[in-house]
Amino acid sequence: MLKVIAQDFIHPQHIEQVMPLYQELVALTRQEPHCLSYELFTNQKDAGHFIFVELWPDRAALDAHCATEHFQRLVPQIDRWQRAPGTYLLMDPVFDA
Amino acid sequence: MLKVIAQDFIHPQHIEQVMPLYQELVALTRQEPHCLSYELFTNQKDAGHFIFVELWPDRAALDAHCATEHFQRLVPQIDRWQRAPGTYLLMDPVFDA
Repeated sequence: MLKVIAQDFIHPQHIEQVMPLYQELVALTRQEPHCLSYELFTNQKDAGHFIFVELWPDRAALDAHCATEHFQRLVPQIDRWQRAPGTYLLMDPVFDA
Repeated sequence: MLKVIAQDFIHPQHIEQVMPLYQELVALTRQEPHCLSYELFTNQKDAGHFIFVELWPDRAALDAHCATEHFQRLVPQIDRWQRAPGTYLLMDPVFDA
């Protein structure tokens, strides 16, 4: 199992523009055959700080996700409203492998 | 729902010392009546970077967790092996509230 945390930092005044993009990205990603979990959150202290918490069976599934039409189309549109570069963390389970 | 990401940065040479502490913390936390999910991961690029991904019904449940005997006893023992202060993020779901 591959757990992923991906964080986006969006200008607060442009949250309205990114919400439909995130909504489409979440809906289409959840339809991917190897997507186990794909959830989006916001930081309670920073409305423009968006956090994806994802679960994939393996790295190949994550790579396939990043190569999808919807990812390739929507992520650059979201990134137009960034205030800082996104970050991501690839993680292994500690006690539940 | 309250999603939490808590991150610990442990000296790599002291991972052996923290593992049994984390194991006990995870096992006892999962027995808390309001704990919905409590998972521990490590960064694939940094074995001393530990990440908890947690789900609680509300802030009161998280506060109760932080007040438990096991949290109050184990977290300071884990923190003895820190190489940098821990961080935490309290988050709201975006589309699944």
